Amino acid sequence: MANNPIKSRALVARGPFSEGKWAMEEVTLREPGEDEVLVEMVASGLCHTDLHCGDTPDDKGVPGVYYPRVLGHEGSGYVQKVGAAVTHVQPGDAVLLSFTHCGQCHVCQTGPVSHCTSFFRINFMGGPVFAPQPRPDADADEAPPLGGLFFGQSSFAQHTIASAKSVVNVASLNLTRDELKLLAPFGCGLLTGSGTVVNVAKAGPDDAVVIMGMGGVGLAAVMAARNAGCRRIIGVDRIPARLALAKSLGATHTIDTTGLALPGGCGHQPLVVAAIEATRYMGRIIQVGAGMPDAAVTLPMQKWMDSGKQYFGAVMGQCDTAEYIPRMIRWWRDGDFPFERLVQSFSFDDYEAAIESMIKGTVVKPIMVW
Amino acid sequence: MANNPIKSRALVARGPFSEGKWAMEEVTLREPGEDEVLVEMVASGLCHTDLHCGDTPDDKGVPGVYYPRVLGHEGSGYVQKVGAAVTHVQPGDAVLLSFTHCGQCHVCQTGPVSHCTSFFRINFMGGPVFAPQPRPDADADEAPPLGGLFFGQSSFAQHTIASAKSVVNVASLNLTRDELKLLAPFGCGLLTGSGTVVNVAKAGPDDAVVIMGMGGVGLAAVMAARNAGCRRIIGVDRIPARLALAKSLGATHTIDTTGLALPGGCGHQPLVVAAIEATRYMGRIIQVGAGMPDAAVTLPMQKWMDSGKQYFGAVMGQCDTAEYIPRMIRWWRDGDFPFERLVQSFSFDDYEAAIESMIKGTVVKPIMVW
Repeated sequence: MANNPIKSRALVARGPFSEGKWAMEEVTLREPGEDEVLVEMVASGLCHTDLHCGDTPDDKGVPGVYYPRVLGHEGSGYVQKVGAAVTHVQPGDAVLLSFTHCGQCHVCQTGPVSHCTSFFRINFMGGPVFAPQPRPDADADEAPPLGGLFFGQSSFAQHTIASAKSVVNVASLNLTRDELKLLAPFGCGLLTGSGTVVNVAKAGPDDAVVIMGMGGVGLAAVMAARNAGCRRIIGVDRIPARLALAKSLGATHTIDTTGLALPGGCGHQPLVVAAIEATRYMGRIIQVGAGMPDAAVTLPMQKWMDSGKQYFGAVMGQCDTAEYIPRMIRWWRDGDFPFERLVQSFSFDDYEAAIESMIKGTVVKPIMVW
Repeated sequence: MANNPIKSRALVARGPFSEGKWAMEEVTLREPGEDEVLVEMVASGLCHTDLHCGDTPDDKGVPGVYYPRVLGHEGSGYVQKVGAAVTHVQPGDAVLLSFTHCGQCHVCQTGPVSHCTSFFRINFMGGPVFAPQPRPDADADEAPPLGGLFFGQSSFAQHTIASAKSVVNVASLNLTRDELKLLAPFGCGLLTGSGTVVNVAKAGPDDAVVIMGMGGVGLAAVMAARNAGCRRIIGVDRIPARLALAKSLGATHTIDTTGLALPGGCGHQPLVVAAIEATRYMGRIIQVGAGMPDAAVTLPMQKWMDSGKQYFGAVMGQCDTAEYIPRMIRWWRDGDFPFERLVQSFSFDDYEAAIESMIKGTVVKPIMVW
C-alpha cells in the first residue's frame, strides 16, 4: 500500500444522535503511525458508551464529549498495514479491537492496564485519524480531521487506524469472516461482564453473585458466573424479557425492580447505594459502570469498617486482552458462552435501526457489519 | 475451687474517667459459664477504646457506652477454672486475652471472625460478671452486677471471667510471669496494627505503605511492614517524638501533619478523606479505626471506578488469634518486634497516671500490672 490517503467510509457523529447529526460519510485516513495498525473492519458492536459520547450535547461540559468524531469501540477486522514498531500482528491477521492504555504509568507497568492513569484521556479523547473526503480540487484545509482513536480504534469505519495496544491477534483461531463479525462485541461489553466475575471477583462455587442490569455486560457476567459454578446467580433488571434471558443463561434467581422504591440519585447511583446496603458482611460490591460525572456514594465509617464490605470499581474486567479474548472465544466454541443469543446484526447503513434497538432495549447487543 | 463467690479487685468505671468516676473496688465474681474461663490476671494493656467507652457520658446515646462496668481488653494471666465446654485451656495455662465473636454467623463460619456480624454487640456490650463486694449482712440485691465481658474479658480486674473465644493459650511458649505481663497488649492494638499489614494488606517488597497515626496500632504496623520488607514505609503523625520512634522502628519516611490543612470533618474522618485522595491508582486504603458514629466518607463514582482504588475496613487485623498471637511472640523473641520500646508499666493502683500518660501521649502503650 502506498502512502496515498486511504479512502473509506465511516459513521460520523457531528452532534448528538437524537438530533439527527450522525451520518455515513466518505472519509480519508492518514497513514498509521509507528505504533498503529490500519485495519479493514468487518463489524462493530454497539454499546451505550458510544451513545454517552455521541448523544450528549457538547456544550454541557461533559468530559469526553466532542464533535465531529468517529465513535465505536468493539471492532473486528483484518490487518492491512502496521507501523514500524508493531510486531504482534501482520497484514492479513484477523483481529479484535479493545481498549488502549499508555504503557508508561505505574499501573501499566504492574497491571491491570485497564486502570491506566491516562485511561480516560487516551480512550475517550482519542486523536485525529480521519478527514472528510476532499473534493479533487479542494485544499487540504477544507478537510480538517475528525476525531478518531476512540478507545484506540473508532471502529465505526470501514477502515480505521487503531492503537497497536488495542489490537488483539486472533489469527491462530482460524475464524471465518462471519465468525469474526459475530465476535466483534468481545472487545468491551462481553469482556467487561465476564472479566469482572473471572478476574476481579474471582467468583467460585462458594460465592453468591448479584448482577445488577441484564444488558450485554450483565448477561456476560451471568454466563461467566455459571461457568464458575457460583452457588447463587441473581440477575436484577426491570425488563421481564431480560430476566427470562438471564434465567435461560444460568441465573438461579431474578429480581424485577419494576416499582421498587430505590434511594434517590442520578444515573446508576441509586442501584449502587442499594447494592452496598444489601450486600452482607465481607461481601464485595464491584462497580463496572458510572453514572453522571457528579454521582457520588457516601459510606458510614464505623459501619463500613465493622462490615468488612469492599466497594471498588473495575474497568474492562481488569482483563489482559491478549490472553482473555482468545479464552472467551474458546468458551464460545465449547458452548459455554452462548453470547450469540444476545446479538442482532444490522448493516452499517441501517445504523439508525441498530441504535434504536439498543435504546428501546429490543436488542441486547446490536452488531453493525460491513 | 468451690462454687463460692470469688472475691477480687477491679477498676470499675461508674461514669466518665475525666469526671473522677473510676475507682478500684472490691468485687465478687459469679461462676464461669460452660463456655467461659476464670482467669487470674497479671496485667492489662490500656487502649483508647477503653476511654471511648469509659470517658463518654452515658446520656449522649453513643452506642456501647454504659456504666457501671469493668473495662479493659488487652489482658494476660493464668487460667484458674474452665467451664464444662472449654477444651483448649486448663487451669494453670498462661493465656492472652483478645476479642470474642459469636461463632454462629456466616462470617464466623468462613472467617475472618473479627468481622462477626454480632461483633459490636458482643464485644462492646458484654454482660454481667462482677458485683460489688457485699457487706456480710447485706441482701444480694444490694450488690447488682457490674458490666463485664468487655471484649469477652473486662481485663481491668485481678480476676475475671472471659469468653472462651477470647482466650489464647500461650502455655507452650514457657513465658515467665514478667514476660506475660509485658505481652498483655498483644490482644488488641499490636495485633490490629501488625495484622492489618500481614493479613489484610498482605504487604511485601513491592509495596509502599503509608501508616496514619503513630500510636500503638500504627507503630506495630511499622514493625510488621519492616519485617515484610516493604520498599517504602511512611509514618504520619503530629508528635515529633512519635515520628522519631517510627524511624527507629523501620519507617523509611515520616510526615509531620502539624499545621497541615486537612479537609473538615470529625474524628478520623479528615485523615481518611486525605488518605483516599492521596492514594495512587490501584492503591488500598484500609481503615482500622472509626471516629464518631455519624462520620462518613463520600466517594465520586466515576473517578472511584477509574482509579481501581479500594477503601475498606479491617477489624483486629482480621487475625486468627490462636495462630497469630503466638506468631507475634516468636517475632518478639527473635528481635523482630521490639514493642517493649512502646510500653511503660504502672501498678493498677496508679491507673490515673497510666491513663493520663496515654491521654497526653507521653507513653504509647501503658500496661497496668497486678
